[in-house]
Order: sequence, then structure tokens, then C-alpha cells
Amino acid sequence: MKKLINSADSVVSDALEGIALAHADLVRVYRNPDFIVRADAPVPGKVSVISGGGSGHEPLHSGFVGKGMLDAACPGAMFTSPAPDQMLAATRATHSGAGVLYIIKNYAGDVMNFEMAVELAAAEGVEIATVVTNDDVAVRDSLYTAGRRGIGVTVLLEKIVGAAAEAGASLAECQRIGERVNAQGRSMGVALTSCTVPHVGRPTFDLGEDEIEMGVGIHGEPGLRRAKLADAAEITRQLANPILDDLPFRSGDNVLAFVNGMGGTPLIELYVVYAELAKLLKERRITITRSLIGNYITSLEMAGCSITLLRFDDELTRLWDAPVLTPEWR
Amino acid sequence: MKKLINSADSVVSDALEGIALAHADLVRVYRNPDFIVRADAPVPGKVSVISGGGSGHEPLHSGFVGKGMLDAACPGAMFTSPAPDQMLAATRATHSGAGVLYIIKNYAGDVMNFEMAVELAAAEGVEIATVVTNDDVAVRDSLYTAGRRGIGVTVLLEKIVGAAAEAGASLAECQRIGERVNAQGRSMGVALTSCTVPHVGRPTFDLGEDEIEMGVGIHGEPGLRRAKLADAAEITRQLANPILDDLPFRSGDNVLAFVNGMGGTPLIELYVVYAELAKLLKERRITITRSLIGNYITSLEMAGCSITLLRFDDELTRLWDAPVLTPEWR
Repeated sequence: MKKLINSADSVVSDALEGIALAHADLVRVYRNPDFIVRADAPVPGKVSVISGGGSGHEPLHSGFVGKGMLDAACPGAMFTSPAPDQMLAATRATHSGAGVLYIIKNYAGDVMNFEMAVELAAAEGVEIATVVTNDDVAVRDSLYTAGRRGIGVTVLLEKIVGAAAEAGASLAECQRIGERVNAQGRSMGVALTSCTVPHVGRPTFDLGEDEIEMGVGIHGEPGLRRAKLADAAEITRQLANPILDDLPFRSGDNVLAFVNGMGGTPLIELYVVYAELAKLLKERRITITRSLIGNYITSLEMAGCSITLLRFDDELTRLWDAPVLTPEWR
Repeated sequence: MKKLINSADSVVSDALEGIALAHADLVRVYRNPDFIVRADAPVPGKVSVISGGGSGHEPLHSGFVGKGMLDAACPGAMFTSPAPDQMLAATRATHSGAGVLYIIKNYAGDVMNFEMAVELAAAEGVEIATVVTNDDVAVRDSLYTAGRRGIGVTVLLEKIVGAAAEAGASLAECQRIGERVNAQGRSMGVALTSCTVPHVGRPTFDLGEDEIEMGVGIHGEPGLRRAKLADAAEITRQLANPILDDLPFRSGDNVLAFVNGMGGTPLIELYVVYAELAKLLKERRITITRSLIGNYITSLEMAGCSITLLRFDDELTRLWDAPVLTPEWR
């Protein structure tokens, strides 16, 4: 295992120290329990938007704390849900009486621990609402989930709901917009290589030199099928078609097209995939009105990508275009 | 070789198509010869800032075209210098009478081809100045260079000189600022793994499971020495000490600290390195006044990082903080 770390035990802690040192103008980092809040929290009269999840998917979520996006992020251990006391502490540090929205990726551990935090916060009189993302069309009832997994839509939802909260939307309104984003978005990912979790020290799964894992999860969970390595055009089709058919997206739709890198794939390859995706959508008479290309929800150093399509309208476009100022998105 | 590409021959071309489709609001992409210009070029009365180099280092340079940074970028084939006709065409498309600055990384091919473009443009009556970056302290007179290689400082220089040009600085002023940035900046990189150039199809170099290449070049050129894998603190020291001693940086200096990912290293590890770097600079009583952490000058999917330190002052800080709007930096 070759990693730029001091030890498997200290990666998350050391990186939090790095974030605190690099971005003191934007965020404050708290330890034990660990959470990151925007520097000006709590913002009077504003709904607090909080997310979190296992570490190893950066910049999600810790890089997205700041004006126009998250009020707080709760990083768990590597690929491990954060604990309820992290969400509770982040809630206390950011809520200002307008309520708190938890954005939760649909994994059993995350859902359980966030639900526990809802109860703890409610007992303190804080009004909490939740949105659970479950946009991955690859599998149902997977290794870590009942129902679909939450992946790329989470990134888009944090940006869009963050903008709504910043603009003064109520808790109910933020939740409604979040649920709409999740309902209108679909994703699927592919792995060309595995990642290696520091504590484990060996690749999560084995892939032959000519094999890919189609529909892989962001922790290296098995996907739809083991497939043969193919060119970018074919891989893009295999990712996009199930997404398009699931919602379904239709001729005349406007969409945000998101090509996400898993962490170990060069940016130039993500643009190759984007070009293929754009051709494919044009054939189906679907119009890309906004795009996002890069590493946003990663799986450590895994090579591969995911595609997310989000049906777009004026409300979502306006919120998407709103200013944002966080360590990793501005 | 596992890559999200259609063929080794089409990677650069396909990615340019992706850039054109994704960022039509910010840039125009021209083909044969290939170059990218900001959408509003030529900007009347403004010095045009042009850079370029081999592909495979994205987001450098093509992702940095736009307001406040480059007027044009010329992408060569993978790890191969662009040809003079690309720089000439980019010059014609962007110059507005105020002159043109070429930012050149110190590699023999780049220097030769940019110098040829200078002559061609001069023959058309366009005033050209150049800045050559050579910030890599690892080696002198390396595989592709006479003198030191240009690496991380190039990124910072494009941002800072781009801001100066945007604010109306003259050609001589832009060149002066560029030379100052290069003179005050030093870098060094380390590889944990090799990258694979698509046309070659196998790793550029071999590293044992417990080996790293200290002082590696951005094309996988040999560095200072083959070293044993160590923890992040030790690797950071081995990178930072030669940088600090070279300029030298001194107690009381203000610096911009830049931790750059080589393409295949997770962001969380870059923050671990940043935390170590910050500790080390604090010991030397050097103050980090600005930071940059992420994949900016990459080597395809190589795992590793480079560190760049740039001695900072009020003029450079003001230009660093100026607004920028490009596909990959905003």
C-alpha cells in the first residue's frame, strides 16, 4: 500500500488539521467529536444544512462547507458513517432557530446514525428535517443499503439546497427542493481499478487487466456486473443508458450533466467521457443546460467515473448558478 | 493499460471536444492547429497571456483559459510540446495591439517551439515577451531540459500574471511580474507510482512496492534519487527542505504554500501533506499567507505530489486574490 499518510489511524485526523490550517478564513474545524462548520456559523435566521459520511470521498462533504452550500459536515472514519454525537454537535453549533436539514446518503449506517441524531436534536427542541439521496440505478438492496445507494446526486443536492437556504428558504422549502433534486436525478458509476482502504492495506476487490466493475459503489461495493474493458464511447453508453431509461429522461428535457472522477482518473479522461455523453444526449434530443466535470465524490484513488443526470428547470438552474464559497467549490 | 479513452490517438482531440461542449460560455476551442481562447478574445487594450505544453497535465493549461488568467492555451500531444503554428494562431486570435506574453515551462521542446513562434509572430509585427519557469530544485540539465525544469510555479505564475494583464498592466510589467514569481518560487515532486502514456501502453518507469521517486519530473523523468517509502511527515520534509534551502526561504518570510496532486492521489492525502508542511514552516518561522491544495499540474494518473513555495508580498497577494473565471479555476 502506497499512500501519503502518517498511519492508517491518523489519516482523517491529519487531513482535518490540514483543512483547519488551510481554510481558517472559510471554516472552523472541531475535534472530538469531529465536525466542520462555516466560519460565520450560526447564521441568524438561516436554515442550517448539514451533511456527512465516511471519509475517503473528498471533496465531499468536508470541502463543501461554506456560504451557499453546507453549514456543517461530519466526517466519519474512512468509509464509515459518522456517529450521532458528531451530527448533534454540528447541529448545536450551526442552528439559529430556523431549523436544520440533514442530507443523508442512503447507506444503512448513515441513515441509522443521522436518524439517531434527529431524535437527540429534537429532544433539545431543534426542528430537524431530512433528505435521503438514493440515485444510483445500478443496484437495489446492496451490500450496505436497503434500496438504492446515494451517490452523485448528493453533490448537486448540497449545492442546490445550500443556495436555497442561503437565499432564506424555510426548512420545509429546503426539504421540498432537496426531495425534488433527488427525485429528478439518477447516477451510475464504473471502476477500472479498486481502491485500497488504509486500515485494510490491500485492494477492496480484484479486477483483471481487461475487466471493469460496472455499477460499482463508492466504497468498492459490487455493481451490476463484471464487464470487459471497452472504449470510452461504449463505457459511457453502458453508464448513461440505464440512467436515461430509469427516470426516464425524455426528448425535450433539460439536464445538468455531471461526469465525476472516482479519484484516480485523469481530468483529460473525464472530458473524453463528457464528450461521449454529450453526443449520446444529443441523439436523444436531451439538452445539457449545465455541466460539472471533475472529482467531487471520490473513492480514494479508485480509477473510474460516475455519470449523474439531473432534470433541470428554472428553479434548480437559478439555485445552481447562485454564488458559493467553500474550500473546494467556489 | 486501463483508461477511459477511445484510442491513444484520439485522447487529446476527444477531450478538446469535451471542453468545447462543456465550457462554450467561457472559451472557444479551435482545431488544426489546436488552441483554446477565452470567449471574449481579443480583449481590446489588454496584453494577451498565452501558455501551452504537452497534454496530460490537466487542468494546466487548457483549464486555465478565461478572465483573469490565460487568453489562450496550446495543448500538444500527450507529454509533447505544442508546435509553433499553434502558438502563432493563438497569438493572432488574442492579441489586440498591447503585446503578447508567452509563459513557457523549461523543457527543450517547449522552449524551441515557443521561440520559433516568437519569431513568426514578430515577423507579423506582434510584440512578444516571454517568461520561462524553472522552479524544480530536484535536478539540473535533466532528461528534457538544459537547466531546471518548470513545474508548480507555472500554475501560480499563470494566475498572478493573468491578474496583472486583466488589470491593464503593460507587456513589460507582465513580464517583470512573471520573472519575479519564477525567481521567488521553488518546487519539488515525488512519485509513488508511475503513469502510463496511452501511446506507450506501459508504465513510464518501474517502482518497487516500497519505493518512491524523489524529485520526479512531470513526465515521469528520473528525479534526485530512488528512496524508500516513508510516512507523510518524512516525505514532506524530504520535499520541503531542498526547496527551503535553495532560494533560500528565511525566517520572517511570507509564502504561498502549494501542495499539488500528481493526478492519482486522493485529496485527503494532499491535506495530510499540507498539515505536515504547515508544521515544518512554522518551525522555521515562515508564515503561510495563502495556500493552494489540489490537482493543478498533473502527470496523468501518477500517484504523488509536489510542493511549491512562493515568497509572497503585497503585490503578488493582491494579484493572487483578484477574481478569475476559467473552466477549472474560479
